[in-house]
Order: sequence, then C-alpha cells, then structure tokens
Amino acid sequence: MCTAIGYLTENFYFGRTLDNDVSYGEEVVVTPRRAPLVFRNLPAAERHYAFIGTACISDGMPLYYDAVNEKGLCAAGLNFAGNAVYAPPQAGKKNLAQFELLPCLLGSCASVRQAVAFLRGAHITNQAYNADMPPAQLHWIIADRREAVVLECTRGGMKIYPDPVGVLTNNPPFPVQMFKLGEFVGLSPREPRSTFSPRMRLRSPGRGMGAYGLPGDLSSPSRFVRAAFARENAVSGAGEAESVSQFFHMLDFVSQPRGCCAVGEKYEVTLYASCCNADTGVYYYTTYENRTPVAVDMRREDLESSRPARYPFVRTMTVVRAN
Amino acid sequence: MCTAIGYLTENFYFGRTLDNDVSYGEEVVVTPRRAPLVFRNLPAAERHYAFIGTACISDGMPLYYDAVNEKGLCAAGLNFAGNAVYAPPQAGKKNLAQFELLPCLLGSCASVRQAVAFLRGAHITNQAYNADMPPAQLHWIIADRREAVVLECTRGGMKIYPDPVGVLTNNPPFPVQMFKLGEFVGLSPREPRSTFSPRMRLRSPGRGMGAYGLPGDLSSPSRFVRAAFARENAVSGAGEAESVSQFFHMLDFVSQPRGCCAVGEKYEVTLYASCCNADTGVYYYTTYENRTPVAVDMRREDLESSRPARYPFVRTMTVVRAN
Amino acid sequence: MCTAIGYLTENFYFGRTLDNDVSYGEEVVVTPRRAPLVFRNLPAAERHYAFIGTACISDGMPLYYDAVNEKGLCAAGLNFAGNAVYAPPQAGKKNLAQFELLPCLLGSCASVRQAVAFLRGAHITNQAYNADMPPAQLHWIIADRREAVVLECTRGGMKIYPDPVGVLTNNPPFPVQMFKLGEFVGLSPREPRSTFSPRMRLRSPGRGMGAYGLPGDLSSPSRFVRAAFARENAVSGAGEAESVSQFFHMLDFVSQPRGCCAVGEKYEVTLYASCCNADTGVYYYTTYENRTPVAVDMRREDLESSRPARYPFVRTMTVVRAN
Amino acid sequence: MCTAIGYLTENFYFGRTLDNDVSYGEEVVVTPRRAPLVFRNLPAAERHYAFIGTACISDGMPLYYDAVNEKGLCAAGLNFAGNAVYAPPQAGKKNLAQFELLPCLLGSCASVRQAVAFLRGAHITNQAYNADMPPAQLHWIIADRREAVVLECTRGGMKIYPDPVGVLTNNPPFPVQMFKLGEFVGLSPREPRSTFSPRMRLRSPGRGMGAYGLPGDLSSPSRFVRAAFARENAVSGAGEAESVSQFFHMLDFVSQPRGCCAVGEKYEVTLYASCCNADTGVYYYTTYENRTPVAVDMRREDLESSRPARYPFVRTMTVVRAN
Repeated sequence: MCTAIGYLTENFYFGRTLDNDVSYGEEVVVTPRRAPLVFRNLPAAERHYAFIGTACISDGMPLYYDAVNEKGLCAAGLNFAGNAVYAPPQAGKKNLAQFELLPCLLGSCASVRQAVAFLRGAHITNQAYNADMPPAQLHWIIADRREAVVLECTRGGMKIYPDPVGVLTNNPPFPVQMFKLGEFVGLSPREPRSTFSPRMRLRSPGRGMGAYGLPGDLSSPSRFVRAAFARENAVSGAGEAESVSQFFHMLDFVSQPRGCCAVGEKYEVTLYASCCNADTGVYYYTTYENRTPVAVDMRREDLESSRPARYPFVRTMTVVRAN
Repeated sequence: MCTAIGYLTENFYFGRTLDNDVSYGEEVVVTPRRAPLVFRNLPAAERHYAFIGTACISDGMPLYYDAVNEKGLCAAGLNFAGNAVYAPPQAGKKNLAQFELLPCLLGSCASVRQAVAFLRGAHITNQAYNADMPPAQLHWIIADRREAVVLECTRGGMKIYPDPVGVLTNNPPFPVQMFKLGEFVGLSPREPRSTFSPRMRLRSPGRGMGAYGLPGDLSSPSRFVRAAFARENAVSGAGEAESVSQFFHMLDFVSQPRGCCAVGEKYEVTLYASCCNADTGVYYYTTYENRTPVAVDMRREDLESSRPARYPFVRTMTVVRAN
Repeated sequence: MCTAIGYLTENFYFGRTLDNDVSYGEEVVVTPRRAPLVFRNLPAAERHYAFIGTACISDGMPLYYDAVNEKGLCAAGLNFAGNAVYAPPQAGKKNLAQFELLPCLLGSCASVRQAVAFLRGAHITNQAYNADMPPAQLHWIIADRREAVVLECTRGGMKIYPDPVGVLTNNPPFPVQMFKLGEFVGLSPREPRSTFSPRMRLRSPGRGMGAYGLPGDLSSPSRFVRAAFARENAVSGAGEAESVSQFFHMLDFVSQPRGCCAVGEKYEVTLYASCCNADTGVYYYTTYENRTPVAVDMRREDLESSRPARYPFVRTMTVVRAN
Repeated sequence: MCTAIGYLTENFYFGRTLDNDVSYGEEVVVTPRRAPLVFRNLPAAERHYAFIGTACISDGMPLYYDAVNEKGLCAAGLNFAGNAVYAPPQAGKKNLAQFELLPCLLGSCASVRQAVAFLRGAHITNQAYNADMPPAQLHWIIADRREAVVLECTRGGMKIYPDPVGVLTNNPPFPVQMFKLGEFVGLSPREPRSTFSPRMRLRSPGRGMGAYGLPGDLSSPSRFVRAAFARENAVSGAGEAESVSQFFHMLDFVSQPRGCCAVGEKYEVTLYASCCNADTGVYYYTTYENRTPVAVDMRREDLESSRPARYPFVRTMTVVRAN
C-alpha cells in the first residue's frame, strides 16, 4: 500500500511511499510545458504547467503515481481498492478519466484552491486507459504549501475533504481515518505524566516512553496514525538537506521491511519512497534496494520541450567506501 | 536508546542503532592485532585478534560501542541505566572494568562459546575510565553466526542469558523482555484468520493486516518486539547488497524520527545505525543526516599494525544527481 | 453511554446497559394492548401488541429506552449524539416523531422483517415530545430471534443496516463500528498459536491468553468489540437461569465501575442493565446499587387493560443472609 | 486464574475472584478461636484469632483460598504456577508448609506488620497436604487497612514486596507486574487532552474516552492493570452497601464470562467473587450462577467454639419477583 505526506519547512516537501509485492518499472518523468496532454472527454492541453514525478510509461504515455508541478501543486494517487467507485461519463459534466486526473490537475492548476474549484464541476469516470489496464482504484491527496485535500469517489459520489494532517494512506475512506485518528488524541512525544492513580505516583518503566500507544503494524489505518504523528511532531532544520533527511525519516517510520507483511506468497515492501521540493522542483527518491536519495531536478530540463524526460529508477545500492 | 540485531544469510551480519539526543564524536575504529590492550586488573594483551567497530576516542583510547573481530565474534553495549550494577574489584576473580569488556572479549575470544567460558570466572567492576567518565550503565549482546547471549550485571549479580531472538534493546532486564515478547506470541506477518466468532466470518478491514498488534512507539520493550519480529520474519537474498539492505530496513523499523520521542527539551534520534559483515569485516554505517551506507573494510588495513585506524563519521547527506 | 445485546439459547434474550452520570427515574412499564398509542402525524392505535420495557414516565406517558413486545420483537434506543439528524415532517411520508419509534414499531410489528417493511416508507422527525424535552439523539437496534438490524438517521438520511453481531453501542455510525470490529478479526478465546517466528516457538506468558488484544476501556467502539466478542463466544446452558446469568455476565463485561470514566466532574456508571426473555415476556433488570435481578412478568399483567402497569426500579442492594 | 483487591472506605474491604474451569466445592468457613490449628513443623495453636473465608474442606480441615481474621488481617493465595518454588524443610528455620500459611498468619498476626515480622524467619516448605494433593503453586497478598504486601517463593528464594496498589493476580512475579503497570502510567479516567499535535486540536471520537488504552483481555497482567486502575480510581459512598456494591463492580471489571477464555476444551469463568468487611467480619460472596451477595457474619458465630462453622456456597440464581 502507500503513504503520502506533505511537510513544510522553508520550502514545501511532498512525497510518498509505494508498498507492493511487485514493481511495474517506475521512473522519474518530467513532463515539460509543451508535451501534449490529451484527454478522452476534454480538449487537449497544448501548453500547460510542467510537472515532475514518478510514473510508469505505457504506450509512450507517463501514468503518474505522484507528481509536483512548477507552481508547487502536488498530487498523489493511493490505492483505495474496494471503496473507489467511478461511473461512466455523464453528459453536461467535465468528464475526466481516472488516469487523467493527475496530469489534468497539475497541468492546469497552480494551487489546491484552483484544483478544488476545477473539481467542483468534474466527474471522474471509469474509462480504462486501454484494454489491458482497468482503472486503478485510487483516492488522491492534493497539496500545496498552504493546505491539503483528499479526493474520494465512492458509492456515495465524489467528495473533497480538507486534510488537516496532510497525510493519506489507503482504506478506509478518509472520514473514517480521521475518526480513528481521534482515538489517539492523547498521544504525545513527551514522557507520559503519571495520571493512573489520583493518590500516588506510578513509576514509568524508563525514559523513551513518548508516543506510547502508537500502533506499529503496517495496516493502512496504523500507517495513517504513524505518519500523522511523525509529521505533526517533526523537528528539523529548515535547509534542504535537513528537510529532505527528516522527510525520509518520516517515510521510514511507515516503511515495510520485507517479511513483516505477507500478501499471499509474497511480501509487501516499500518499493520506492519519494520526496519532492515543491518550490524548486527537485525530486528525490530511494528504492528498497538503494537507500541513497537520487535527485532529478525539473529545472535542469528544457521545460519548453514537447518531449518528456525520463530517468529510470536506480535500484542498486550505493555505498561510499571510506578505505 | 539503542537496538542491536544479528542476522544470518550467507554471511553473518551484526549491527545496532544508537538513539540519543546528543552525539559524542563517534568514528569507525579498526584496532589491529598489535595495538596494545591494557587492562586495570589483568595483564595487557600484546597481540590479539583485530576488531572493527564504532568508538569514541578518549585520551587516544577507543571506547567501543559495538565491534566485530576477525573471527566473527560480535559484541555491543547498550544502555541499561537504572538496572546495571557493577561492584568493586574482588580478589581471586578475573576483574574487568566495565569499559574493558568489549576489547577484552573481542581481543581474546573467537566465538560466543569462548566468550561465555571466559566470562564464567569474570567479575565486571565499577572502575571508572577516568575521573570525568563514570562507568556507563550497560548490558551487552555477544553474538556469532551460531548463537547470541546477553550479559547483565544487576543487583542480583552477573547473569548470562541465551538470546534466542538475537536482539537486544535497553530496560527492563532481559528475562522481562523475553516475558513481554511472549505476549506477542500470536503475531504473524500473514493476514489474520477470522477467529473472532465461531459462527460467522468477520470481514478484515483490508489487505496488509499482517503484524496487527505490533506496538509502534519507541520505548525499549516495544523496540525489542519490533526488532525481534522483523528479524525472525526477515526475507532477503543472501548476497552482500541484499543482506545489508535488509539489515538497514530492519534497523529503520526501530529508528527514531526527530520529534517523536522527547527527552526533556531535546529529542532522541537514531544518531547512527551500523551493520557489520562479521565474516568479511566490512563495517557499514549510516547517520541521522546521511542515509547512504559508508563502508570501512577492516581487511584493507594493516592488521599487524600497532596503531588503530580511524574513520570519523561522514555526517553530510549523500545525494546522487541524475541530471 | 449504552450497550445492547441480543442472545439466543432456547429462548431469545434482549437487553442493554444504560451508562450515565445521572438517572431520570427509570421504571419497568408494561403497556397493555388497549393502552392508547397516540402519534403526532399518524392515526392512534387503539389496540396493539402489548410490550414491556424500561421507560421514564413523562406527563403520564412512558418514554421507552428499550422494550420487547408479546410477539418477541425487541428494540432499544441508544445515544448517538453528534451523529443523529432528524428532519421536520415531510408530506407524503409516514412521519414518526423520534420518541414515537419504539411504541409504534412494537405496537404494530411482529418481527424485524415487518419492522423493516414498515420503516421503508417512514420518516423520523425532529418533533419534540414537549417544550422541555428536545429529541434525544439516538440510533436503534431492532431484533428478534432470527435477526437484528440497526436504524440510523444521519446527515446522509435514514439507513437500516443488518447487524450480524446483534450488538449496538453508541458513536460512531454503525458501518464504522463494523469496520473497526474487523480490526479484531484475529481475536479468539483460545490460547494464541505461536506464529511470531517461523523458525522457533516463542513461549506464551501463561495460561489465560485468550482474547489477548481485546480493548478494555469504556469508549463506545471498545464496548462494541467487547460485547460482540462476549456474545459471539458465549457458552451457557439453554435454561432460563443459565441464559439470564450468562446475559448479565456479558453486560458486566461492558459495565462501568464508578470512577473509571469521568465526564466533567461526574462519572458514568451503569445505571441499569436489563435482560428480557422475548419469548416469555419476563423482564429482568439490575441497577448499579442492586446486583440481584428483579423480574417483571408481562404475562402476569392484564394485557387487555388500557392502563400501563408500572414497577419503579428497586435500587437497594439485596443481600441474602446465611447466618 | 484470580484477582485479589483491598479497598478502603470507612471500613476496609478485601476480596477476590477465583477463575477456573472447575469448582472444588468451596464453602464459607468460620474457624473459631479454639479450633485447633495443627502444623507439620511448628507447635499447634490451641487458641488463636478467629477467621472467616472461603475454603474447601479436605479430611475435615479447611484449606483456605482467602480469609480475614478478627483483627482485620486479610490474606489470599493466588495461582502462581510455573513460578512458585517451595523447598524442603530447613533446620533452624520456622518451617511452614505452603498450605499452612493462611491459618498460621491469620491465627497469630493482627496486622501486616506482624505478619511480615513473623515471615522474616520463616521458610515455606513443599510438604504436601496429603498424597493426593501436591502443594498448590501460589503466591499471596496480605493486607490490612494500612498496607498490603505480596509474598512470593521463587527460584530466587522467598521475597516480600510492598504492594502499593493493593492488588494481586497471577503470573508473572510481582516485580514484573509492577514494571508492566508502569507502561500504563499515563492512563486516566478523564477524557484525554489533545496532545497529538503541537499545532492543532485533534477531535476526540466522543465522550467516554477515559481509560483509553486499558487492556481488555483476561490474562493475568491485563487483569492486574484493570484491577489496579479500578481500585485507584474507585469512587463510592463510605457506607456498607455502597462499599460492597463498588467492590463487586471492581471485581466485575476483571471477571470472566463463559466463552471468552478457553483452556483446552473448557472455559475459565469466575467461579466466585468475595468481599469481606475486615472490620466487621461479614463475608459476602457471589458465584457465577448467583449474582446476589450472600453474607456470612463471623460475629454471629460462637467464636470461642472449637468447631468450624460451614456455609456451603449457594449457587442458584436469586431473582426478586416484582409481580
């Protein structure tokens, strides 16, 4: 499954993990301003905002998992299997196929506010990308440095929720995640005060009892709580290295070591983790095999080009030899 | 605090995290065979096994936190404050100051079995390294590819426990940790079977429920359970890169992002994480700031030298630029 | 707050706890067949099924908390504050004031199936009983020996859910309760199998580890899990005494000792617990002060009467003196 | 298994639950002052303090599970299987067979202080009561209105621990129970304050979140935490009825409904629960089948008699019929 986080220091950082038992050939792709964005039901965008993110390329077209545009708008699609419901196109609406959402929003909107306005009249459809690829069941987090929202299409229709913790994982639907988060309202990074007994002081078992009660498994609700807790309480310097370092530590906090979470005969692992500086357009990622951040800088590409730039994932471990 | 783990694939790997709010200038130090090991109460060792590990240097002498010798014997000292009790030297015993334990064992023993035999008549003393440095309150894990033991000196005397999970954290004493681990006997990486009701099948909230019930905070007992679970269920290739990668993922599983665990006005973070291939003597470490493993190869040093080789920690983030 | 349970042995038993910090003068009331049932928007029922339950009497009219009719249909209203939404009467619908629901259903329906059919065209209104008594924010469990449903009116409208565990507590809405219940799918009354490690047998801390992981606080979701677990796994004889005894033990499992759950300056306690044999119409209750079941037998009343029979709660402790 | 609690209002109350899958014919037995107390290794007590409690009678001799003497000293033996170790008699010590502990202490000591003084030179032996009855593996809580202690004989020898929470259950040894209790230091009956995030207020899921985090299963450590929490936070009137009522509610909080805890093919249930007013010597008990307290008043017996008075348990449900 997956976890997405936004994090604000001096710049705004946005990224996610993708947990799965199998990889589909992810790469970092920069879509420049003149790369044509063609839609099933809407007019093509000839010139649009450039964006960078992780995608897999299918028939030459990047299908983005998460991306950030040159205005600092960020979006990621996360697994929402069993709850996501998309309908056929409806006359009189801005019909948008599920797989078109990210390029459409990032190509045309400069902020969450604009994205939300755009989505008000939109209708997410169940149109397939091609015959082999049924629509992925996803929900989305859309964020900029000011705010974050979650977009969900369920049996009850399309909903947009403000996301006060700037985090998204998978099932259940977002309102239930927030309800469950409330159960942990009393958690704190501080040593617990001794409140067990009104008449005596109980002895804590030792230092480091902060966050006691935090769930530790890898289910989606538990990762939601963990990511929210790590983000809300994160402490780091404001510079690039310190921010990126802290961001990856937060993702480590919800990452999956191989063997801890079995799905059938395989194991989910954190295939990749990403962190994009939404202000500079530098996109960092790590893979399960390679802990070292690899950086792709959107602004070092020709953003007026019409051809996406592709950087296949580096998956071999980088080691620095000291002797 | 800290977490130590041993992990066997084709080779045996041993390492640990060190969590604290302040660093003391750690570096990787190789102690070659002829570097003199001087002891307070025992004869000096003129020639001994070489070993490599993380130490801070005080008055020219490396005080090791964790180390591995050329025979593959591994040891680490972990915080045991409040429980560790050392006594003054006793006549008629092999008196060993607390800070001499690691060099003495690693210099002279080729296996856990030899270390245990050596320790049978030993007496760990409360002699201070110098006036500024009272004896650290520690307990120790000693491991090789065949077995692991834990050594604790408490009010009840010195005890050596077999450590079936090959893991050590901090308080409480090891037997209590193992008792507590038993509470989690029913955890599994697999999806839970529906056993709630004998007459109907309850619906699980979604895939990825493996390990449900695992604690997620950063207290020592919780890290013990998490490290043991990750290690017992670890799945990786047997090669060097895959083993080291898996090892650091296990350590990530017990690592502390800054902000989640407050101690007073500061925060514990995982200052460093290490992973040593006990068969080849290559020692890898990462720091909070630098995710990329830095490797020091003991066998690239002159092991017949009399001077320790020092490699101060690299603490700046390594980033690979793709464009 | 409250917990309601249905339990089937030879007969069907239905009851609930009511947890609050203050009592409103509850009593057991039998409404016989000719006691007029007057409704705000529907024609009065001159003759109807008789029913028995706990009510408080306001202006001579019993306002039922829970009741069972002579056909074995059972219903209880439970606090649903913050989620319950009732609307004004709507033309063209069977408008039913919130406080009329229990007498209306129990007076006219002989089964859950009939109740559900009746409710299909119904509309629960926000009409107040009187000026001093705004509509209580409730949701309802309706049960007979074959099935149970939950009725909720929220912002999303009126919904009827099948209730496979035959239990209801308070917030959150029923679908979220069931989702959360799924988190406990792996609980079992049996000793956990040792699945922690694929390569060794961990030692369980002792006998009696059944249900390990069951939450123990008194929040509504925790009581839901506890009540469902106790009910699904209940083992008892089929006779009256054994069934009633088991029923009260299940309610004890979700009951509140004074002091454990503070609300403001007061404490919630289990003001009363009830258990009605839906087949015989014998209604048992206990209060916080009086552990001994007090029984009122509906069929010992004149059920063709037009006047309710009232049995104010016995609240003093019954003790049997053996010497 | 079992749970014992002491509770002080105007008088001091002491009692326990006994959880098992099979009953051994318990009864309330008053041992008057002149009933001879014969010991294996010590001189018989011809006249001693009278005491009352639950016992099973074997060969005419009451073997007490829990009892209270006329001076207000209370004691109970609780299952400690796997940890209890008794040794053969030792020359030069006050040897006391395991089954003699309760009558010996209650017959001769007027306070915990006296009991502790007596025990200082004592040695608990493994002498069997008879050939069919090996020594039960127990540990003991000894309490009066001022203090409580726990007595344990393990491989490490005999230990007496002050018990600040006045509670005892079963395994693990008492120091480990207290260590584990410390994990719950931050629990409180109050609604949790919103400390999850330093920058925003998370919404709690509803009222009644006091005690959130309390374990709910029936294992010995969980019952220890639950009983301690209920006792430390108990709120009741000071009179007899209110105190006894509150006491039984605290015991309900750790009681076992049949079906929730399987041991082999059977189920543990709370066979009996007791509450003795240590100041007046009135002993109340309930059984799994009979919720109504049955009272035996020690002072209504001839305490100068030499014959124990026996009151076999009433096990049929008492119901008060209101019509």
